[in-house]
Amino acid sequence: MTFSWQKGHGTENDFVLLPDHDGTVHGDLDPSFVAALCHRRRGIGADGVLRVIRSSAAGVTSEAEWFMDYRNADGSISEMCGNGVRVFARHLLDEKLVDTDRFAVATRDGDKLVSVGADGQIAVDMGAFSIGGYSEVRTSEGLAVTAREVHTGNPHAVAFVDDVEQAGTLLTEPRFDREVYPEGVNIEFVARRGPGHVRMRVHERGSGETRSCGTGACAVGIATALADGDTARPTEYRIDVPGGTVHVTLDENDHVVLTGPAEIVARGEMEWMA
Amino acid sequence: MTFSWQKGHGTENDFVLLPDHDGTVHGDLDPSFVAALCHRRRGIGADGVLRVIRSSAAGVTSEAEWFMDYRNADGSISEMCGNGVRVFARHLLDEKLVDTDRFAVATRDGDKLVSVGADGQIAVDMGAFSIGGYSEVRTSEGLAVTAREVHTGNPHAVAFVDDVEQAGTLLTEPRFDREVYPEGVNIEFVARRGPGHVRMRVHERGSGETRSCGTGACAVGIATALADGDTARPTEYRIDVPGGTVHVTLDENDHVVLTGPAEIVARGEMEWMA
Repeated sequence: MTFSWQKGHGTENDFVLLPDHDGTVHGDLDPSFVAALCHRRRGIGADGVLRVIRSSAAGVTSEAEWFMDYRNADGSISEMCGNGVRVFARHLLDEKLVDTDRFAVATRDGDKLVSVGADGQIAVDMGAFSIGGYSEVRTSEGLAVTAREVHTGNPHAVAFVDDVEQAGTLLTEPRFDREVYPEGVNIEFVARRGPGHVRMRVHERGSGETRSCGTGACAVGIATALADGDTARPTEYRIDVPGGTVHVTLDENDHVVLTGPAEIVARGEMEWMA
Repeated sequence: MTFSWQKGHGTENDFVLLPDHDGTVHGDLDPSFVAALCHRRRGIGADGVLRVIRSSAAGVTSEAEWFMDYRNADGSISEMCGNGVRVFARHLLDEKLVDTDRFAVATRDGDKLVSVGADGQIAVDMGAFSIGGYSEVRTSEGLAVTAREVHTGNPHAVAFVDDVEQAGTLLTEPRFDREVYPEGVNIEFVARRGPGHVRMRVHERGSGETRSCGTGACAVGIATALADGDTARPTEYRIDVPGGTVHVTLDENDHVVLTGPAEIVARGEMEWMA
Protein backbone atom coordinates (compact mmCIF):
# COMPACT_ATOMS: atom_id res chain seq x y z
CA MET A 1 0.00 0.00 0.00
CA THR A 2 1.58 3.27 -1.17
CA PHE A 3 0.15 6.69 -0.41
CA SER A 4 1.04 10.36 -0.04
CA TRP A 5 1.71 11.65 3.44
CA GLN A 6 2.96 14.67 5.28
CA LYS A 7 3.99 15.30 8.87
CA GLY A 8 3.25 18.58 10.61
CA HIS A 9 2.78 20.07 14.05
CA GLY A 10 1.39 23.07 15.90
CA THR A 11 3.25 23.76 19.17
CA GLU A 12 4.34 20.10 19.10
CA ASN A 13 0.84 18.72 18.75
CA ASP A 14 1.77 16.54 15.77
CA PHE A 15 -0.13 14.91 12.94
CA VAL A 16 0.28 12.66 9.96
CA LEU A 17 -1.63 14.20 7.06
CA LEU A 18 -3.11 11.87 4.47
CA PRO A 19 -4.07 13.65 1.24
CA ASP A 20 -7.00 11.70 -0.21
CA HIS A 21 -8.89 14.36 -2.13
CA ASP A 22 -11.55 12.12 -3.63
CA GLY A 23 -11.62 9.50 -0.88
CA THR A 24 -10.32 6.85 -3.25
CA VAL A 25 -7.00 6.16 -1.50
CA HIS A 26 -8.01 5.24 2.03
CA GLY A 27 -11.69 4.32 1.71
CA ASP A 28 -13.21 4.36 5.19
CA LEU A 29 -9.74 4.82 6.74
CA ASP A 30 -9.36 1.73 8.89
CA PRO A 31 -9.01 2.63 12.60
CA SER A 32 -6.38 -0.08 13.09
CA PHE A 33 -4.29 1.44 10.29
CA VAL A 34 -4.57 4.89 11.90
CA ALA A 35 -3.48 3.45 15.25
CA ALA A 36 -0.54 1.61 13.66
CA LEU A 37 0.58 4.74 11.78
CA CYS A 38 0.37 6.86 14.97
CA HIS A 39 2.26 4.41 17.19
CA ARG A 40 5.45 6.23 18.16
CA ARG A 41 7.71 3.16 18.13
CA ARG A 42 6.03 0.67 15.81
CA GLY A 43 4.75 3.27 13.34
CA ILE A 44 5.54 6.81 12.26
CA GLY A 45 4.18 8.42 15.40
CA ALA A 46 1.69 11.25 15.82
CA ASP A 47 -1.03 12.59 18.10
CA GLY A 48 -3.53 11.99 15.31
CA VAL A 49 -4.25 11.72 11.59
CA LEU A 50 -5.69 14.47 9.40
CA ARG A 51 -7.20 13.08 6.21
CA VAL A 52 -7.45 15.81 3.56
CA ILE A 53 -10.63 15.10 1.61
CA ARG A 54 -13.16 17.18 -0.28
CA SER A 55 -16.37 17.75 1.68
CA SER A 56 -18.32 16.35 -1.27
CA ALA A 57 -16.25 13.15 -1.30
CA ALA A 58 -16.68 12.78 2.47
CA GLY A 59 -20.45 13.17 2.19
CA VAL A 60 -20.34 16.34 4.27
CA THR A 61 -22.72 19.20 3.44
CA SER A 62 -20.66 22.36 3.69
CA GLU A 63 -19.75 25.48 1.76
CA ALA A 64 -16.11 24.67 2.64
CA GLU A 65 -14.31 22.71 -0.08
CA TRP A 66 -12.08 20.73 2.30
CA PHE A 67 -13.12 18.47 5.17
CA MET A 68 -10.73 17.72 8.02
CA ASP A 69 -11.29 14.02 8.66
CA TYR A 70 -9.59 13.97 12.08
CA ARG A 71 -8.76 10.72 13.88
CA ASN A 72 -7.22 10.26 17.31
CA ALA A 73 -3.99 8.32 17.71
CA ASP A 74 -5.94 5.28 18.87
CA GLY A 75 -7.97 5.29 15.63
CA SER A 76 -11.15 6.68 17.15
CA ILE A 77 -13.03 9.62 15.64
CA SER A 78 -12.93 13.06 17.20
CA GLU A 79 -15.03 16.06 16.27
CA MET A 80 -12.44 18.80 16.40
CA CYS A 81 -8.83 19.57 17.18
CA GLY A 82 -7.76 23.20 17.48
CA ASN A 83 -4.12 22.62 16.60
CA GLY A 84 -5.09 20.02 14.00
CA VAL A 85 -7.24 22.44 12.04
CA ARG A 86 -4.38 24.95 12.06
CA VAL A 87 -1.92 22.38 10.67
CA PHE A 88 -4.61 21.31 8.17
CA ALA A 89 -4.93 24.95 7.06
CA ARG A 90 -1.13 25.26 6.68
CA HIS A 91 -1.23 22.24 4.38
CA LEU A 92 -4.06 23.69 2.26
CA LEU A 93 -2.07 26.92 1.91
CA ASP A 94 1.29 25.27 1.16
CA GLU A 95 -0.23 22.97 -1.45
CA LYS A 96 -2.27 25.83 -2.97
CA LEU A 97 -5.52 23.97 -2.33
CA VAL A 98 -6.99 27.31 -1.25
CA ASP A 99 -6.32 30.67 -2.88
CA THR A 100 -7.12 33.10 -0.09
CA ASP A 101 -5.68 33.61 3.40
CA ARG A 102 -9.12 33.51 5.01
CA PHE A 103 -11.23 30.42 4.43
CA ALA A 104 -13.44 27.85 6.13
CA VAL A 105 -12.50 24.25 6.90
CA ALA A 106 -15.30 21.71 7.31
CA THR A 107 -15.06 19.54 10.44
CA ARG A 108 -17.37 17.15 12.28
CA ASP A 109 -18.03 20.11 14.61
CA GLY A 110 -19.12 22.31 11.68
CA ASP A 111 -17.21 24.83 9.57
CA LYS A 112 -14.27 26.58 11.21
CA LEU A 113 -13.05 29.93 9.91
CA VAL A 114 -9.28 30.09 9.50
CA SER A 115 -7.14 33.13 8.77
CA VAL A 116 -3.44 33.71 8.22
CA GLY A 117 -1.70 36.55 10.00
CA ALA A 118 1.03 38.74 8.55
CA ASP A 119 3.59 36.78 10.58
CA GLY A 120 2.45 33.45 9.08
CA GLN A 121 0.71 32.31 12.25
CA ILE A 122 -2.63 30.63 11.73
CA ALA A 123 -5.76 31.60 13.63
CA VAL A 124 -8.90 29.52 13.93
CA ASP A 125 -12.24 30.73 15.22
CA MET A 126 -13.17 28.01 17.70
CA GLY A 127 -16.68 29.45 18.09
CA ALA A 128 -18.80 29.92 21.17
CA PHE A 129 -18.00 28.51 24.58
CA SER A 130 -19.76 27.98 27.89
CA ILE A 131 -18.73 28.42 31.49
CA GLY A 132 -19.63 26.35 34.53
CA GLY A 133 -18.86 26.53 38.21
CA TYR A 134 -16.09 25.41 40.52
CA SER A 135 -15.00 21.99 41.68
CA GLU A 136 -11.85 20.43 43.07
CA VAL A 137 -9.11 18.59 41.19
CA ARG A 138 -6.44 16.65 43.06
CA THR A 139 -3.18 15.25 41.70
CA SER A 140 -1.92 11.80 42.63
CA GLU A 141 0.77 13.57 44.67
CA GLY A 142 -1.90 15.29 46.77
CA LEU A 143 -2.14 18.84 45.39
CA ALA A 144 -5.78 19.95 45.66
CA VAL A 145 -6.90 23.00 43.66
CA THR A 146 -10.24 24.60 42.86
CA ALA A 147 -10.84 24.51 39.11
CA ARG A 148 -13.22 26.43 36.83
CA GLU A 149 -15.40 24.49 34.40
CA VAL A 150 -15.13 25.70 30.78
CA HIS A 151 -16.47 24.02 27.64
CA THR A 152 -14.73 24.76 24.33
CA GLY A 153 -15.82 21.76 22.29
CA ASN A 154 -14.28 19.61 25.04
CA PRO A 155 -14.87 19.89 28.80
CA HIS A 156 -12.05 21.51 30.75
CA ALA A 157 -11.22 22.09 34.41
CA VAL A 158 -8.89 25.07 34.73
CA ALA A 159 -6.92 25.21 37.99
CA PHE A 160 -4.76 28.21 38.90
CA VAL A 161 -1.53 27.44 40.75
CA ASP A 162 1.53 29.51 41.68
CA ASP A 163 3.85 27.40 39.52
CA VAL A 164 2.84 24.76 36.94
CA GLU A 165 5.53 22.43 38.32
CA GLN A 166 3.34 22.08 41.44
CA ALA A 167 1.19 19.76 39.29
CA GLY A 168 3.98 17.21 39.74
CA THR A 169 4.62 14.34 37.35
CA LEU A 170 1.03 14.14 35.99
CA LEU A 171 1.79 10.48 35.33
CA THR A 172 -1.73 9.60 36.41
CA GLU A 173 -4.95 11.50 35.87
CA PRO A 174 -5.79 13.97 38.63
CA ARG A 175 -9.00 13.20 40.49
CA PHE A 176 -12.00 15.33 39.60
CA ASP A 177 -15.70 15.52 40.44
CA ARG A 178 -17.48 12.90 38.31
CA GLU A 179 -20.83 14.55 38.96
CA VAL A 180 -19.56 17.70 37.24
CA TYR A 181 -17.69 15.84 34.49
CA PRO A 182 -19.49 12.53 33.88
CA GLU A 183 -17.64 12.01 30.57
CA GLY A 184 -14.23 12.92 31.94
CA VAL A 185 -12.36 16.17 31.59
CA ASN A 186 -9.11 17.73 30.40
CA ILE A 187 -7.38 19.38 33.33
CA GLU A 188 -5.23 22.50 32.96
CA PHE A 189 -2.83 23.80 35.61
CA VAL A 190 -2.20 27.49 34.98
CA ALA A 191 0.27 29.97 36.48
CA ARG A 192 0.40 33.70 35.80
CA ARG A 193 3.47 35.05 34.08
CA GLY A 194 2.52 38.71 33.74
CA PRO A 195 -0.38 40.85 32.50
CA GLY A 196 -2.27 38.86 29.84
CA HIS A 197 0.32 36.11 29.97
CA VAL A 198 0.06 32.66 31.56
CA ARG A 199 1.78 29.30 31.42
CA MET A 200 -0.12 26.00 31.39
CA ARG A 201 0.31 22.26 31.58
CA VAL A 202 -2.50 19.94 30.57
CA HIS A 203 -3.60 16.39 31.30
CA GLU A 204 -5.85 15.23 28.45
CA ARG A 205 -8.40 12.56 29.20
CA GLY A 206 -7.30 9.33 27.60
CA SER A 207 -3.89 10.70 26.55
CA GLY A 208 -2.06 11.85 29.68
CA GLU A 209 0.07 14.98 29.75
CA THR A 210 0.57 16.44 26.27
CA ARG A 211 2.79 19.15 24.79
CA SER A 212 -0.16 21.27 23.74
CA CYS A 213 -3.96 21.25 23.63
CA GLY A 214 -5.81 23.77 21.47
CA THR A 215 -9.21 23.63 23.17
CA GLY A 216 -7.36 23.60 26.52
CA ALA A 217 -5.48 26.80 25.70
CA CYS A 218 -8.81 28.36 24.73
CA ALA A 219 -10.36 27.28 28.03
CA VAL A 220 -7.39 28.75 29.91
CA GLY A 221 -7.75 32.09 28.09
CA ILE A 222 -11.45 32.19 28.96
CA ALA A 223 -10.89 31.24 32.62
CA THR A 224 -8.11 33.81 32.98
CA ALA A 225 -10.27 36.59 31.54
CA LEU A 226 -13.01 35.58 33.97
CA ALA A 227 -10.61 35.56 36.92
CA ASP A 228 -9.26 38.95 35.83
CA GLY A 229 -12.76 40.39 35.45
CA ASP A 230 -11.62 41.29 31.93
CA THR A 231 -14.82 42.00 29.99
CA ALA A 232 -13.22 44.02 27.17
CA ARG A 233 -13.73 42.51 23.69
CA PRO A 234 -11.54 41.81 21.90
CA THR A 235 -9.09 40.78 24.60
CA GLU A 236 -6.06 38.58 24.09
CA TYR A 237 -3.97 36.28 26.27
CA ARG A 238 -0.56 34.81 25.57
CA ILE A 239 -0.42 31.19 26.69
CA ASP A 240 2.84 29.26 27.00
CA VAL A 241 2.35 25.51 26.61
CA PRO A 242 5.19 22.96 26.94
CA GLY A 243 5.47 22.80 23.13
CA GLY A 244 5.51 26.54 22.42
CA THR A 245 3.29 29.60 22.61
CA VAL A 246 -0.22 30.33 21.37
CA HIS A 247 -2.49 33.35 21.71
CA VAL A 248 -6.15 33.17 22.61
CA THR A 249 -8.52 36.02 21.75
CA LEU A 250 -12.05 36.57 23.00
CA ASP A 251 -13.63 38.54 20.17
CA GLU A 252 -16.58 40.89 19.73
CA ASN A 253 -18.90 37.96 18.99
CA ASP A 254 -17.82 36.22 22.21
CA HIS A 255 -16.08 33.61 20.11
CA VAL A 256 -12.72 32.25 21.16
CA VAL A 257 -9.93 32.40 18.55
CA LEU A 258 -6.77 30.29 18.79
CA THR A 259 -3.65 31.66 17.05
CA GLY A 260 -0.23 30.08 16.77
CA PRO A 261 2.45 28.50 14.61
CA ALA A 262 1.70 25.54 12.34
CA GLU A 263 4.38 23.83 10.32
CA ILE A 264 4.74 21.02 7.79
CA VAL A 265 8.12 19.32 8.33
CA ALA A 266 8.14 16.50 5.76
CA ARG A 267 6.18 15.17 2.82
CA GLY A 268 6.44 12.31 0.38
CA GLU A 269 5.15 8.94 -0.68
CA MET A 270 5.10 6.07 1.76
CA GLU A 271 4.87 2.33 1.25
CA TRP A 272 3.30 0.89 4.38
CA MET A 273 4.70 -2.55 5.11
CA ALA A 274 3.61 -3.42 8.65
CA MET B 1 16.04 18.16 0.18
CA THR B 2 14.55 14.83 -0.96
CA PHE B 3 15.90 11.45 0.09
CA SER B 4 14.98 7.80 0.58
CA TRP B 5 14.03 6.69 4.06
CA GLN B 6 12.64 3.76 5.94
CA LYS B 7 11.34 3.31 9.46
CA GLY B 8 11.93 0.15 11.44
CA HIS B 9 12.11 -1.19 14.98
CA GLY B 10 13.35 -4.08 17.09
CA THR B 11 11.23 -4.60 20.23
CA GLU B 12 10.16 -0.94 19.87
CA ASN B 13 13.68 0.42 19.75
CA ASP B 14 12.99 2.44 16.59
CA PHE B 15 15.11 3.92 13.84
CA VAL B 16 14.94 6.02 10.71
CA LEU B 17 17.07 4.33 8.06
CA LEU B 18 18.75 6.54 5.45
CA PRO B 19 19.96 4.59 2.41
CA ASP B 20 23.01 6.47 1.12
CA HIS B 21 25.02 3.73 -0.52
CA ASP B 22 27.81 5.89 -1.91
CA GLY B 23 27.67 8.66 0.69
CA THR B 24 26.57 11.18 -1.92
CA VAL B 25 23.12 11.94 -0.47
CA HIS B 26 23.84 13.03 3.10
CA GLY B 27 27.55 13.95 3.03
CA ASP B 28 28.78 14.08 6.60
CA LEU B 29 25.20 13.70 7.89
CA ASP B 30 24.67 16.89 9.85
CA PRO B 31 24.02 16.18 13.56
CA SER B 32 21.35 18.91 13.70
CA PHE B 33 19.50 17.24 10.82
CA VAL B 34 19.64 13.88 12.62
CA ALA B 35 18.29 15.49 15.81
CA ALA B 36 15.49 17.24 13.88
CA LEU B 37 14.51 14.02 12.09
CA CYS B 38 14.46 12.06 15.38
CA HIS B 39 12.41 14.63 17.33
CA ARG B 40 9.15 12.86 18.12
CA ARG B 41 6.91 15.91 17.76
CA ARG B 42 8.76 18.29 15.45
CA GLY B 43 10.26 15.56 13.24
CA ILE B 44 9.53 11.97 12.29
CA GLY B 45 10.63 10.52 15.60
CA ALA B 46 13.08 7.72 16.37
CA ASP B 47 15.61 6.51 18.92
CA GLY B 48 18.33 6.97 16.31
CA VAL B 49 19.33 7.05 12.65
CA LEU B 50 20.93 4.20 10.72
CA ARG B 51 22.68 5.43 7.58
CA VAL B 52 23.14 2.57 5.10
CA ILE B 53 26.47 3.19 3.39
CA ARG B 54 29.15 1.01 1.80
CA SER B 55 32.18 0.55 4.05
CA SER B 56 34.36 1.80 1.19
CA ALA B 57 32.30 4.99 0.83
CA ALA B 58 32.43 5.55 4.60
CA GLY B 59 36.22 5.17 4.64
CA VAL B 60 35.92 2.10 6.86
CA THR B 61 38.35 -0.78 6.39
CA SER B 62 36.27 -3.93 6.62
CA GLU B 63 35.51 -7.16 4.80
CA ALA B 64 31.83 -6.31 5.34
CA GLU B 65 30.25 -4.50 2.39
CA TRP B 66 27.84 -2.41 4.48
CA PHE B 67 28.65 -0.01 7.29
CA MET B 68 26.06 0.90 9.92
CA ASP B 69 26.56 4.63 10.42
CA TYR B 70 24.61 4.85 13.68
CA ARG B 71 23.64 8.17 15.24
CA ASN B 72 21.85 8.80 18.49
CA ALA B 73 18.60 10.75 18.55
CA ASP B 74 20.47 13.87 19.70
CA GLY B 75 22.74 13.68 16.62
CA SER B 76 25.78 12.38 18.47
CA ILE B 77 27.77 9.38 17.26
CA SER B 78 27.54 6.02 18.98
CA GLU B 79 29.71 2.98 18.38
CA MET B 80 27.10 0.26 18.45
CA CYS B 81 23.44 -0.49 18.99
CA GLY B 82 22.35 -4.10 19.38
CA ASN B 83 18.78 -3.56 18.20
CA GLY B 84 19.95 -1.10 15.55
CA VAL B 85 22.25 -3.62 13.89
CA ARG B 86 19.39 -6.14 13.81
CA VAL B 87 17.06 -3.64 12.11
CA PHE B 88 19.93 -2.70 9.77
CA ALA B 89 20.33 -6.39 8.88
CA ARG B 90 16.58 -6.71 8.23
CA HIS B 91 16.86 -3.82 5.79
CA LEU B 92 19.85 -5.38 3.96
CA LEU B 93 17.89 -8.63 3.63
CA ASP B 94 14.60 -7.02 2.53
CA GLU B 95 16.32 -4.85 -0.06
CA LYS B 96 18.46 -7.77 -1.26
CA LEU B 97 21.66 -5.88 -0.48
CA VAL B 98 23.04 -9.17 0.89
CA ASP B 99 22.48 -12.60 -0.61
CA THR B 100 23.05 -14.89 2.37
CA ASP B 101 21.35 -15.24 5.73
CA ARG B 102 24.64 -15.03 7.63
CA PHE B 103 26.79 -11.95 7.05
CA ALA B 104 28.89 -9.31 8.76
CA VAL B 105 27.89 -5.67 9.28
CA ALA B 106 30.66 -3.11 9.77
CA THR B 107 30.17 -0.79 12.76
CA ARG B 108 32.34 1.70 14.65
CA ASP B 109 32.81 -1.14 17.17
CA GLY B 110 34.13 -3.49 14.45
CA ASP B 111 32.37 -6.11 12.34
CA LYS B 112 29.31 -7.77 13.82
CA LEU B 113 28.19 -11.19 12.61
CA VAL B 114 24.47 -11.38 11.91
CA SER B 115 22.38 -14.47 11.18
CA VAL B 116 18.74 -15.08 10.38
CA GLY B 117 16.84 -17.82 12.17
CA ALA B 118 14.23 -20.08 10.65
CA ASP B 119 11.53 -18.02 12.35
CA GLY B 120 12.80 -14.78 10.76
CA GLN B 121 14.30 -13.48 13.99
CA ILE B 122 17.66 -11.83 13.64
CA ALA B 123 20.63 -12.69 15.84
CA VAL B 124 23.75 -10.58 16.27
CA ASP B 125 26.97 -11.71 17.87
CA MET B 126 27.72 -8.87 20.27
CA GLY B 127 31.18 -10.27 21.01
CA ALA B 128 33.05 -10.59 24.27
CA PHE B 129 31.99 -9.00 27.53
CA SER B 130 33.50 -8.30 30.93
CA ILE B 131 32.19 -8.57 34.46
CA GLY B 132 32.85 -6.33 37.45
CA GLY B 133 31.81 -6.33 41.07
CA TYR B 134 28.87 -5.10 43.10
CA SER B 135 27.69 -1.62 43.98
CA GLU B 136 24.44 0.00 45.04
CA VAL B 137 21.87 1.73 42.85
CA ARG B 138 19.06 3.76 44.40
CA THR B 139 15.93 5.06 42.72
CA SER B 140 14.62 8.57 43.37
CA GLU B 141 11.76 6.91 45.27
CA GLY B 142 14.25 5.30 47.67
CA LEU B 143 14.59 1.69 46.50
CA ALA B 144 18.20 0.59 47.11
CA VAL B 145 19.47 -2.54 45.36
CA THR B 146 22.85 -4.18 44.92
CA ALA B 147 23.75 -4.29 41.22
CA ARG B 148 26.29 -6.31 39.26
CA GLU B 149 28.65 -4.50 36.89
CA VAL B 150 28.65 -5.87 33.33
CA HIS B 151 30.24 -4.37 30.22
CA THR B 152 28.75 -5.28 26.83
CA GLY B 153 30.02 -2.38 24.74
CA ASN B 154 28.27 -0.09 27.23
CA PRO B 155 28.57 -0.17 31.03
CA HIS B 156 25.59 -1.71 32.84
CA ALA B 157 24.49 -2.09 36.45
CA VAL B 158 22.13 -5.08 36.75
CA ALA B 159 19.92 -5.04 39.84
CA PHE B 160 17.68 -8.00 40.75
CA VAL B 161 14.32 -7.16 42.30
CA ASP B 162 11.21 -9.18 43.09
CA ASP B 163 9.07 -7.19 40.64
CA VAL B 164 10.27 -4.68 38.03
CA GLU B 165 7.49 -2.30 39.07
CA GLN B 166 9.44 -1.78 42.32
CA ALA B 167 11.75 0.43 40.22
CA GLY B 168 8.93 2.99 40.32
CA THR B 169 8.48 5.73 37.73
CA LEU B 170 12.17 5.87 36.65
CA LEU B 171 11.46 9.49 35.74
CA THR B 172 14.88 10.45 37.04
CA GLU B 173 18.13 8.54 36.85
CA PRO B 174 18.76 6.22 39.80
CA ARG B 175 21.82 7.08 41.86
CA PHE B 176 24.88 4.92 41.32
CA ASP B 177 28.49 4.78 42.46
CA ARG B 178 30.44 7.30 40.35
CA GLU B 179 33.72 5.69 41.36
CA VAL B 180 32.61 2.46 39.69
CA TYR B 181 30.95 4.17 36.71
CA PRO B 182 32.77 7.46 36.08
CA GLU B 183 31.20 7.79 32.60
CA GLY B 184 27.69 6.93 33.76
CA VAL B 185 25.85 3.66 33.42
CA ASN B 186 22.71 2.04 32.08
CA ILE B 187 20.75 0.54 34.94
CA GLU B 188 18.63 -2.60 34.57
CA PHE B 189 16.03 -3.78 37.08
CA VAL B 190 15.44 -7.50 36.62
CA ALA B 191 12.87 -9.89 38.03
CA ARG B 192 12.79 -13.64 37.54
CA ARG B 193 9.83 -15.09 35.64
CA GLY B 194 10.81 -18.77 35.59
CA PRO B 195 13.79 -20.95 34.70
CA GLY B 196 15.88 -19.13 32.07
CA HIS B 197 13.31 -16.35 31.86
CA VAL B 198 13.45 -12.84 33.29
CA ARG B 199 11.74 -9.50 32.84
CA MET B 200 13.65 -6.21 32.79
CA ARG B 201 13.22 -2.46 32.74
CA VAL B 202 16.10 -0.18 31.84
CA HIS B 203 17.14 3.40 32.46
CA GLU B 204 19.60 4.43 29.75
CA ARG B 205 22.09 7.15 30.56
CA GLY B 206 21.11 10.29 28.71
CA SER B 207 17.79 8.85 27.47
CA GLY B 208 15.75 7.84 30.50
CA GLU B 209 13.62 4.72 30.56
CA THR B 210 13.38 3.08 27.14
CA ARG B 211 11.28 0.30 25.63
CA SER B 212 14.30 -1.87 24.93
CA CYS B 213 18.09 -1.85 25.12
CA GLY B 214 20.12 -4.48 23.24
CA THR B 215 23.36 -4.23 25.20
CA GLY B 216 21.25 -4.03 28.38
CA ALA B 217 19.44 -7.28 27.58
CA CYS B 218 22.83 -8.89 26.97
CA ALA B 219 24.11 -7.63 30.32
CA VAL B 220 21.01 -9.00 32.01
CA GLY B 221 21.50 -12.43 30.41
CA ILE B 222 25.12 -12.47 31.58
CA ALA B 223 24.30 -11.33 35.13
CA THR B 224 21.47 -13.88 35.40
CA ALA B 225 23.73 -16.75 34.29
CA LEU B 226 26.29 -15.60 36.86
CA ALA B 227 23.67 -15.43 39.60
CA ASP B 228 22.40 -18.87 38.60
CA GLY B 229 25.92 -20.33 38.56
CA ASP B 230 25.05 -21.41 35.02
CA THR B 231 28.37 -22.20 33.36
CA ALA B 232 27.01 -24.36 30.54
CA ARG B 233 27.77 -23.03 27.05
CA PRO B 234 25.73 -22.42 25.05
CA THR B 235 23.10 -21.27 27.50
CA GLU B 236 20.11 -19.12 26.64
CA TYR B 237 17.85 -16.72 28.52
CA ARG B 238 14.52 -15.29 27.48
CA ILE B 239 14.30 -11.62 28.40
CA ASP B 240 11.04 -9.69 28.36
CA VAL B 241 11.56 -5.96 27.81
CA PRO B 242 8.72 -3.41 27.79
CA GLY B 243 8.73 -3.44 23.96
CA GLY B 244 8.72 -7.22 23.45
CA THR B 245 10.92 -10.27 23.97
CA VAL B 246 14.51 -11.04 23.04
CA HIS B 247 16.74 -14.02 23.71
CA VAL B 248 20.33 -13.79 24.89
CA THR B 249 22.75 -16.67 24.37
CA LEU B 250 26.18 -17.15 25.91
CA ASP B 251 27.97 -19.27 23.32
CA GLU B 252 30.95 -21.62 23.22
CA ASN B 253 33.31 -18.72 22.52
CA ASP B 254 31.98 -16.83 25.56
CA HIS B 255 30.42 -14.34 23.20
CA VAL B 256 26.97 -12.93 23.89
CA VAL B 257 24.40 -13.24 21.10
CA LEU B 258 21.24 -11.11 20.97
CA THR B 259 18.26 -12.58 19.08
CA GLY B 260 14.87 -11.03 18.46
CA PRO B 261 12.40 -9.57 16.00
CA ALA B 262 13.32 -6.73 13.65
CA GLU B 263 10.81 -5.12 11.32
CA ILE B 264 10.65 -2.45 8.64
CA VAL B 265 7.24 -0.74 8.82
CA ALA B 266 7.44 1.95 6.12
CA ARG B 267 9.61 3.14 3.26
CA GLY B 268 9.56 5.87 0.68
CA GLU B 269 10.94 9.18 -0.46
CA MET B 270 10.80 12.19 1.83
CA GLU B 271 11.08 15.87 1.14
CA TRP B 272 12.40 17.48 4.30
CA MET B 273 10.94 20.95 4.73
CA ALA B 274 11.73 22.01 8.29
